[in-house]
Amino acid sequence: MTLLSMSYRTNYLHTYFKSTIVIPDSGKKQYKAVWLLHGYTGDDTAWIRHTNIEEMAQQHDWAIIMPEARNAFYSDSDFIPYYSFFVNELIPKIQKMFPLSPAPEDNYIAGSSMGGYGALKIGFTNPDKFSKTAALSPVTDIEKFRNNPQCPMDKKTFDSIFDTAEKIHNNQLATIFNKVQPRQKVLTLCGDKDYMHEDNIMFKNFLTIHLKSNYTWMPVNGNHSWVTWVGNIDKVFKWLEK
Amino acid sequence: MTLLSMSYRTNYLHTYFKSTIVIPDSGKKQYKAVWLLHGYTGDDTAWIRHTNIEEMAQQHDWAIIMPEARNAFYSDSDFIPYYSFFVNELIPKIQKMFPLSPAPEDNYIAGSSMGGYGALKIGFTNPDKFSKTAALSPVTDIEKFRNNPQCPMDKKTFDSIFDTAEKIHNNQLATIFNKVQPRQKVLTLCGDKDYMHEDNIMFKNFLTIHLKSNYTWMPVNGNHSWVTWVGNIDKVFKWLEK
Amino acid sequence: MTLLSMSYRTNYLHTYFKSTIVIPDSGKKQYKAVWLLHGYTGDDTAWIRHTNIEEMAQQHDWAIIMPEARNAFYSDSDFIPYYSFFVNELIPKIQKMFPLSPAPEDNYIAGSSMGGYGALKIGFTNPDKFSKTAALSPVTDIEKFRNNPQCPMDKKTFDSIFDTAEKIHNNQLATIFNKVQPRQKVLTLCGDKDYMHEDNIMFKNFLTIHLKSNYTWMPVNGNHSWVTWVGNIDKVFKWLEK
Amino acid sequence: MTLLSMSYRTNYLHTYFKSTIVIPDSGKKQYKAVWLLHGYTGDDTAWIRHTNIEEMAQQHDWAIIMPEARNAFYSDSDFIPYYSFFVNELIPKIQKMFPLSPAPEDNYIAGSSMGGYGALKIGFTNPDKFSKTAALSPVTDIEKFRNNPQCPMDKKTFDSIFDTAEKIHNNQLATIFNKVQPRQKVLTLCGDKDYMHEDNIMFKNFLTIHLKSNYTWMPVNGNHSWVTWVGNIDKVFKWLEK
Repeated sequence: MTLLSMSYRTNYLHTYFKSTIVIPDSGKKQYKAVWLLHGYTGDDTAWIRHTNIEEMAQQHDWAIIMPEARNAFYSDSDFIPYYSFFVNELIPKIQKMFPLSPAPEDNYIAGSSMGGYGALKIGFTNPDKFSKTAALSPVTDIEKFRNNPQCPMDKKTFDSIFDTAEKIHNNQLATIFNKVQPRQKVLTLCGDKDYMHEDNIMFKNFLTIHLKSNYTWMPVNGNHSWVTWVGNIDKVFKWLEK
Repeated sequence: MTLLSMSYRTNYLHTYFKSTIVIPDSGKKQYKAVWLLHGYTGDDTAWIRHTNIEEMAQQHDWAIIMPEARNAFYSDSDFIPYYSFFVNELIPKIQKMFPLSPAPEDNYIAGSSMGGYGALKIGFTNPDKFSKTAALSPVTDIEKFRNNPQCPMDKKTFDSIFDTAEKIHNNQLATIFNKVQPRQKVLTLCGDKDYMHEDNIMFKNFLTIHLKSNYTWMPVNGNHSWVTWVGNIDKVFKWLEK
Repeated sequence: MTLLSMSYRTNYLHTYFKSTIVIPDSGKKQYKAVWLLHGYTGDDTAWIRHTNIEEMAQQHDWAIIMPEARNAFYSDSDFIPYYSFFVNELIPKIQKMFPLSPAPEDNYIAGSSMGGYGALKIGFTNPDKFSKTAALSPVTDIEKFRNNPQCPMDKKTFDSIFDTAEKIHNNQLATIFNKVQPRQKVLTLCGDKDYMHEDNIMFKNFLTIHLKSNYTWMPVNGNHSWVTWVGNIDKVFKWLEK
Repeated sequence: MTLLSMSYRTNYLHTYFKSTIVIPDSGKKQYKAVWLLHGYTGDDTAWIRHTNIEEMAQQHDWAIIMPEARNAFYSDSDFIPYYSFFVNELIPKIQKMFPLSPAPEDNYIAGSSMGGYGALKIGFTNPDKFSKTAALSPVTDIEKFRNNPQCPMDKKTFDSIFDTAEKIHNNQLATIFNKVQPRQKVLTLCGDKDYMHEDNIMFKNFLTIHLKSNYTWMPVNGNHSWVTWVGNIDKVFKWLEK
């Protein structure tokens, strides 16, 4: 198992961004890859520090790419045009740098919390890049998230990214879904004690109607924390493998 | 020489921030420290990667603290309240974590470009923390910087930090200087081919009048690049030593 | 929680050695510390990468120090005088660098496999530095380990460290125990399917006789792998806490 | 410029080894590479920390690979079979992992001090992998190095690697040269105040006779220190470019 820390100055973001990357040692010319996104307050080392990601990479013989997202909500803002950076610069750069398959059937995207939102948004919008999307306790409704009393994000910070009602609307997962009509396989889960559980149930109902058999809901216990994500990431990877 | 990479989740910024830190091996209980700030597009490893900072730490027997600043311009914004974080959280945390003297006579602040602006601003405003400030090719007038055709920073990014005319005015170094009337020792330098050379000359004239013998102008050749900063950082450290 | 990666050139080893260090954010002047040692083939990041060490540091409000040991078996050899380095240089250096209590009652040493051997050896020999020792699946008999068909270590590598029968004898834990007659609290555990289980049972019997109520045997299931160590490190930390 | 820190568990060495790697951003499918070796007491970050290696990579549009060598003298020993690891495992692994040309005309090897010895030894012996070799202040005669009063290496450490007179003989650069009769381009330099200057002059005379126009001696001033290597690495890279 090879562990890599990559840092480069992105043209989109005018600064250095890091990715933590795990690549198996089986010597393949092109590995399948899971793009695994961290949540609000995390960084590219979050998944490595909370659970044994290398073991999972080895079991599945997959590369795992964990990009730093800062708190940019996987969205374009004036301060950080993160979404454009991720799709237009980071993915092709990493696929050129390492022995990775660029085929959508070989690429999955997953994440937790804000990273679950990011995985769904980037997955829905890029069927030419990803064939499966998995979201653990995702933020499914950014407006309700903003106004939820348990939301850890400062309203000012949220508003610096989503600065108009129109921008909020355009960045709602339901809006994006309706616009791009994705046909990928999608999984979501959310602990029964999560403060966004109700939002997730509504989104589950939405995806059940629209994605039908391409959608999987994984019922789990727990609250909005790493305990839930560490406890279920194995099952999520097994679903990706299927 | 001990090289440290430190990462922790800041309460101010709701995410992990890094600092690269060099501490001599002479076994002192409390080292003097230089807080060395990077410029726009840099990160906490910028100074280590461009020149031999460890050698300089050893020569002077000083600790050198290089905090990550992202592109926040050492200022409070809705997305990153960086100035408050730096002054209220980062400085006391690092002084508690490592064998460093908190006395202002034992702490100097320096930086290049955006980091030069940061050093002057933080230095001026915190005479209880820093006794000397050195700025290499600083941004001395943020409004002229914004509108300079050679400015590398996107106007939208600038405006997401300095979002009103009042905020720009309040964050001008001259405004800050006039308000706090600092009496520390200050050095600035700027290469003769720097695109902000004229701004620096005006600021030199301003500081000459107001700081008198506490101010030093170091005339140097060169443009706005690491060649200038690497070529002069030795002399800057010697001035700090005096 | 502050995560630190420290690198410095040791006088003993004539090269750079790293330590990964976790320090809670509760602002204490002097933290208690667990010195947590990795096994053969590991490095200073092994514990961080296999389990959530930061969570445990936070729960107990302890610092956790994870030094790089390479494959030196926590022993002095011609190539790497590791034991002397660890005791004479590394411990005082780290205790001076960070807010750590040097009192033996505030310092515990633990490790797995080769690191379990290291913890017992260093713990036994340094009652002025450590008050509790915990060993997960330790190598308890280095000669049997060398000759065990399942031993992962090349005999030539082993022999380059323990190069005479006398050196093997002097580095056996029983020899060391009998010589220094430690009176600290000691815990050992070893999975029932571990290829060194029998050696561990013999050592358990030895410690039961000599340490009496100061000794704890923690019976666990499993083989010689991280599954066993990750599954039991929580209980080991609870024992250290008592 | 992409900066990578790579860590993986090598089969040869039964532990994790690191490499620091710089790859330009010009988007080539296969970069030329300089394999840049550190000296005694250094590690994979030595060149990055002493000088601006990334700038040089960019100027030449080359990848630069800086592997950790510990103090193994780029030779096989019982404790670390480093030479075999480097040639048989590390080179192919890195050439598979990154967009690098494996053709010998696209690969150069260079290093300073112990790394200069390593570059000459590995370069001479592997004409199918490297077409040019450059050594800055190399150890050219390991026996004289061992017995030189200014040698920084403990004799016991040296003897743990080169443990018989035959092994010393077989690892002398002259022996290796005579055996493999290399026909690559070779450059050496050594400061006039270097404690191994005389050894280097003898080796210069040897290579002048045997390599004729394929050999370049670069006369420089200075002693055995990073000042000499940092001051001349630019010229060495220009020679590699020719």
